[in-house]
Amino acid sequence: MTVTKNSLSSNRAFVLHPGGTFTFEQREIPALESDRDVLVRIVATGLCGSDVHYWQHGRIGRYVVEAPIVLGHESSGVIVKCGKNVTGLRVGDRVMLEPGFACNICHYCRGGRYNLCEAMRFAATPPYDGTLAKYYRAPSESCYKLPQHISHRDGSLIEPLSVAVHSCRLAGSMQEKSVAIFGAGPVGLLCCAVAHAFGASTVVAIDIVASRLATASKYGATHTYQMSTESSDRNAQDLVASIGLEYGVDVVLDATGAEPCLACGIHALTRGGTFVQVGLGNPTPTVPVGQICDKEVVFKGSFRYGPGDFQLAIDLLNSCRVNVDGLVTHEFSFDRAEDAFKNVVSRVGIKSVIYGPDVDEYEAKKRSD
Amino acid sequence: MTVTKNSLSSNRAFVLHPGGTFTFEQREIPALESDRDVLVRIVATGLCGSDVHYWQHGRIGRYVVEAPIVLGHESSGVIVKCGKNVTGLRVGDRVMLEPGFACNICHYCRGGRYNLCEAMRFAATPPYDGTLAKYYRAPSESCYKLPQHISHRDGSLIEPLSVAVHSCRLAGSMQEKSVAIFGAGPVGLLCCAVAHAFGASTVVAIDIVASRLATASKYGATHTYQMSTESSDRNAQDLVASIGLEYGVDVVLDATGAEPCLACGIHALTRGGTFVQVGLGNPTPTVPVGQICDKEVVFKGSFRYGPGDFQLAIDLLNSCRVNVDGLVTHEFSFDRAEDAFKNVVSRVGIKSVIYGPDVDEYEAKKRSD
Amino acid sequence: MTVTKNSLSSNRAFVLHPGGTFTFEQREIPALESDRDVLVRIVATGLCGSDVHYWQHGRIGRYVVEAPIVLGHESSGVIVKCGKNVTGLRVGDRVMLEPGFACNICHYCRGGRYNLCEAMRFAATPPYDGTLAKYYRAPSESCYKLPQHISHRDGSLIEPLSVAVHSCRLAGSMQEKSVAIFGAGPVGLLCCAVAHAFGASTVVAIDIVASRLATASKYGATHTYQMSTESSDRNAQDLVASIGLEYGVDVVLDATGAEPCLACGIHALTRGGTFVQVGLGNPTPTVPVGQICDKEVVFKGSFRYGPGDFQLAIDLLNSCRVNVDGLVTHEFSFDRAEDAFKNVVSRVGIKSVIYGPDVDEYEAKKRSD
Amino acid sequence: MTVTKNSLSSNRAFVLHPGGTFTFEQREIPALESDRDVLVRIVATGLCGSDVHYWQHGRIGRYVVEAPIVLGHESSGVIVKCGKNVTGLRVGDRVMLEPGFACNICHYCRGGRYNLCEAMRFAATPPYDGTLAKYYRAPSESCYKLPQHISHRDGSLIEPLSVAVHSCRLAGSMQEKSVAIFGAGPVGLLCCAVAHAFGASTVVAIDIVASRLATASKYGATHTYQMSTESSDRNAQDLVASIGLEYGVDVVLDATGAEPCLACGIHALTRGGTFVQVGLGNPTPTVPVGQICDKEVVFKGSFRYGPGDFQLAIDLLNSCRVNVDGLVTHEFSFDRAEDAFKNVVSRVGIKSVIYGPDVDEYEAKKRSD
Repeated sequence: MTVTKNSLSSNRAFVLHPGGTFTFEQREIPALESDRDVLVRIVATGLCGSDVHYWQHGRIGRYVVEAPIVLGHESSGVIVKCGKNVTGLRVGDRVMLEPGFACNICHYCRGGRYNLCEAMRFAATPPYDGTLAKYYRAPSESCYKLPQHISHRDGSLIEPLSVAVHSCRLAGSMQEKSVAIFGAGPVGLLCCAVAHAFGASTVVAIDIVASRLATASKYGATHTYQMSTESSDRNAQDLVASIGLEYGVDVVLDATGAEPCLACGIHALTRGGTFVQVGLGNPTPTVPVGQICDKEVVFKGSFRYGPGDFQLAIDLLNSCRVNVDGLVTHEFSFDRAEDAFKNVVSRVGIKSVIYGPDVDEYEAKKRSD
Repeated sequence: MTVTKNSLSSNRAFVLHPGGTFTFEQREIPALESDRDVLVRIVATGLCGSDVHYWQHGRIGRYVVEAPIVLGHESSGVIVKCGKNVTGLRVGDRVMLEPGFACNICHYCRGGRYNLCEAMRFAATPPYDGTLAKYYRAPSESCYKLPQHISHRDGSLIEPLSVAVHSCRLAGSMQEKSVAIFGAGPVGLLCCAVAHAFGASTVVAIDIVASRLATASKYGATHTYQMSTESSDRNAQDLVASIGLEYGVDVVLDATGAEPCLACGIHALTRGGTFVQVGLGNPTPTVPVGQICDKEVVFKGSFRYGPGDFQLAIDLLNSCRVNVDGLVTHEFSFDRAEDAFKNVVSRVGIKSVIYGPDVDEYEAKKRSD
Repeated sequence: MTVTKNSLSSNRAFVLHPGGTFTFEQREIPALESDRDVLVRIVATGLCGSDVHYWQHGRIGRYVVEAPIVLGHESSGVIVKCGKNVTGLRVGDRVMLEPGFACNICHYCRGGRYNLCEAMRFAATPPYDGTLAKYYRAPSESCYKLPQHISHRDGSLIEPLSVAVHSCRLAGSMQEKSVAIFGAGPVGLLCCAVAHAFGASTVVAIDIVASRLATASKYGATHTYQMSTESSDRNAQDLVASIGLEYGVDVVLDATGAEPCLACGIHALTRGGTFVQVGLGNPTPTVPVGQICDKEVVFKGSFRYGPGDFQLAIDLLNSCRVNVDGLVTHEFSFDRAEDAFKNVVSRVGIKSVIYGPDVDEYEAKKRSD
Repeated sequence: MTVTKNSLSSNRAFVLHPGGTFTFEQREIPALESDRDVLVRIVATGLCGSDVHYWQHGRIGRYVVEAPIVLGHESSGVIVKCGKNVTGLRVGDRVMLEPGFACNICHYCRGGRYNLCEAMRFAATPPYDGTLAKYYRAPSESCYKLPQHISHRDGSLIEPLSVAVHSCRLAGSMQEKSVAIFGAGPVGLLCCAVAHAFGASTVVAIDIVASRLATASKYGATHTYQMSTESSDRNAQDLVASIGLEYGVDVVLDATGAEPCLACGIHALTRGGTFVQVGLGNPTPTVPVGQICDKEVVFKGSFRYGPGDFQLAIDLLNSCRVNVDGLVTHEFSFDRAEDAFKNVVSRVGIKSVIYGPDVDEYEAKKRSD
């Protein structure tokens, strides 16, 4: 891999404008803000539901697209410049980007919960630009070296994999336990894969659409369950019966945020079970709190990822305890970025990836070994 | 204190019949079921909302009064008979009763969570009789010696105090933290007292009725907040502002189960905060799950009490870290038991206590030192 | 499998006498002590170092062989009698025995730590008889059903596997961590297997005898390290360098109790690492406490097994996450029990198993499926 | 408080030279290294055993005084300069200094354990200068505002108080538990105070010197125990008997590092108890590991302090849950700094404090309210 001076003279970006139109623009190449920063040439960027949501709705909760913004935050790339105090990274290193830049000194950061940092600057969350550009500046602590046999394309999956890792770690030990996962989209399937890697003996993938369950077994699911239109309580009974559990499931991960899933999950839990809300949906759903009390359920919100999650995600991929083959179902050149967004909207396939400007498929898919 | 043979020949009980009528009956004196059982002469029994609810509604959830039942489960008494394998207890000992009898061998019990035991036989929960009788049989592990300077009357408060202890322990360390407690009834006030004893620097008692907040400071509250009819979000802002917190409260204990309290509590929490649902209310309220996710809140159901809670409650009372003076506002002789139930319905005062058959106030209030 | 009345009329036992001689005796068939007890016909019993130690030294610490005692405590068998209140088990069930009978009601038991019960009656620990007899009485909660495809022979390994499970659980999450295990005897190898199953990416088996390391990779070890006669500090450096770790190992499990292993392990730990003392050796060794402080090491003693450990051991075996093939290297009929003890002394092979009276190899090795 | 331009033109420092001689020197006023740094005028500095150890022995372990060094790291002061990105602090603020400056981005720092940071620059640990000078540069996250009614003098105790807080937090919940603290020097007494504040019902201060135990009750000790020359085992029995415990103590904090204390403490622990090694002594003592195993003791090394400890120490002082009145027994002007060191060596009194250059006692002792 070579980086010529020329290549550093132009920073092509894919920009979303308020109102929902995209343009390609030449942006300034970002300057390093500190001696511990690096500059990364982006190779592959996975699209996330949130990217598409900003395009279609112009906002997510209190975050509003009020000015042009570069989307994208699931990216791998190559380091092209290092600040003078950067250690452990060199120009030419293939890296995965953790897209949130925390202040590192507030009481959340110092206390080991930087994902809760109030000064967090998160890529592709207004007003902060994301990674759908040629170059991206990042603090060195947000860059993780890709092991030799992980390609840039698969590396772009490490961000959503870290979401799954964070949620599964919140759930506590899964050794030989039963875990039910609602939602068989990318994050739900990755939760299946991590639950399996974490030793769960029963991993049930649950969705309302049968076709989405078809590939779940490839990613660690030992069972699938298709939600019916019956009551949550009844679905929970069916679910537990269908997998032959005596007491109910030990852990529920909900990657849908849908009210029926939330209710079904809580009903399906064993006494003392744990529920982790991975995905966002209805912000104020009805919840069977009576069940939470009677069974002393622990219900946890999961927000992005924190200390150690990215590294653990990389290690799980590297050790082959987690398999992501086939998750990337659609690939797009940078010029076709808008098609990638449209493809996600159509809900065809699992994951869409956009390759950075001046990146060919060969570079994106090859391993460095 | 002497127990004559005669006194053991009659077991007067206060019995609720399906339909809601009470009668006094002569019941058999319970036989010991095992060599590790004891027989207790009941001295004082506090009334709980659940006792009154069974009287007025005939059921709580799936527990239905289908046959005559003796209510009452917050009782202190004196041991009058010991099985031959009982250790650590003797006839004449003043004890507090833990009213749930677990199987002790299922995976919940052996795993240290006997409150989740599926074979639990809980006093005054149908079909199991409670303690509003002269005698009550209990396994020895459910009897806790009363320290010398705790009277029977105050001892009857140890059961609800254990509920507060259990909830506060679920919330994790409270040292120099801010704790908001919704509901200023007996359990809420005891939660205030325990939170204070556990080192909370800020303890806010919250209620909609101003008069109920009047005594909160006596039980450890450093602040009070009267909920307004504003939105939960607005109430949360006012609450946090009124106590001068920068980030929101660290812990919420909800002893109401009311939807507005639940919503206000979650909104008032700091990032990473903990919410413990102490009391039961609407079994399926609307919950701001979006907030739970964004702030990575941990939401825990609390169910009765478990290992160590009773002993810790007794120790807190004994060491004077928790003060319960004045909590018992109404005392009734056994003959006037029905008046006690009526008094709870009228919501006058804080706690009503019924003294056992053949018990005078002097015995109930004196200490043994 | 049929149990005739005749077979219940004789209880042949292998008895150790003070002084170190063994005899075969006809003992009374144990009576059930409670309605929740069962009677088990023993099929296979693994020998443990402690059994052999009692034979050779007449004591372990404060436990002294002062009267004839039946040794053996790693046993599988078949239920031949059930007390009338036994649930979940039936005559004919193949079970693994957990050899410690706790009181179930003390504060340790109720608090979820029954292995610390002061009233524990542990098989083959004086004065309590062990399982090297035809019949053995046990409380039902100490019997775990063997899954169909686990043979009695392999089932006898569940006890030492539970020791490994307990120690690994004490160490906390092992996902993608490095774990060093000192001692490549049965318990050490099982610790390797469990660490691997629990997700450790690096599992180093360590011993001073090269031949004992030969089979470690079969049981999950990714690396082996042969201790040299160098200093502990130097051995630790070599160990860490040999496996290519940047910081030191995350977890050490010491199944030797030997002072050099203990010192090497603590030196090899990363900052914030965890050390679990699995095996007993020198009761008062020299320990690098300075290192423990500087690195904030957590050093934990591990004692037998507690809630959930036996079931998790069975599940790990059943799910094939743990492999024990080849661990049983020597099998003995009941008549040759003393030879089995001699074989353990000679340190040939890994694990020796004795089959119960009237058991043939076919019964011991077959699965029930 | 006013800071004239003049006062910033001179930085008088008290310097230790290799070999053990002290000099007063004019040093450069430290420049801010980053926009988030502040400059602090030192008002009061407590002396720590480590300061004196460097003077007398020239080293502590691998840290050697190879060049002139300014000692002192328990300091309060006043902010005289703020970097432009400092938030939450202003010139004139009275602050307590946390003397370790972590990198904030390594995996220890981000994981919430910055005290383990390998790049830590700790004041008065070679080669980093300490605080016995007029001015000291610090990152803003290391400065904590002093509440109005805490004087600079008492503020200087917050550093050792944080050591006690860190150790007590490592020990887990202390509510109504028994805690034994070895060593009645400043840190031991502060451990007593924190254990009391954390709800311990029994706090035993232990020392070999009776006179040092005299003031322990003032700082939260409910009992004292003077170690005898008997065996550790015997001392442990006496200790437990003297405080009337049934099972042994729940928690031991050892602030001595002395082998007999370590042994006595472990013997005195109840099953399942926790031991925290607070102080350093013999780096490789003999330890009753057999006891650690049999009782499943958790033995933890404690190293300085981490997230939240300083703030909790300040809050405990501010809420009067911890009392430090009388702990500072000797005060010295900056000119008499060497006398302060000599005084610590003589082991007279409890704590010696040196006031910064140009500080009078009035400024050091007054509160800002």
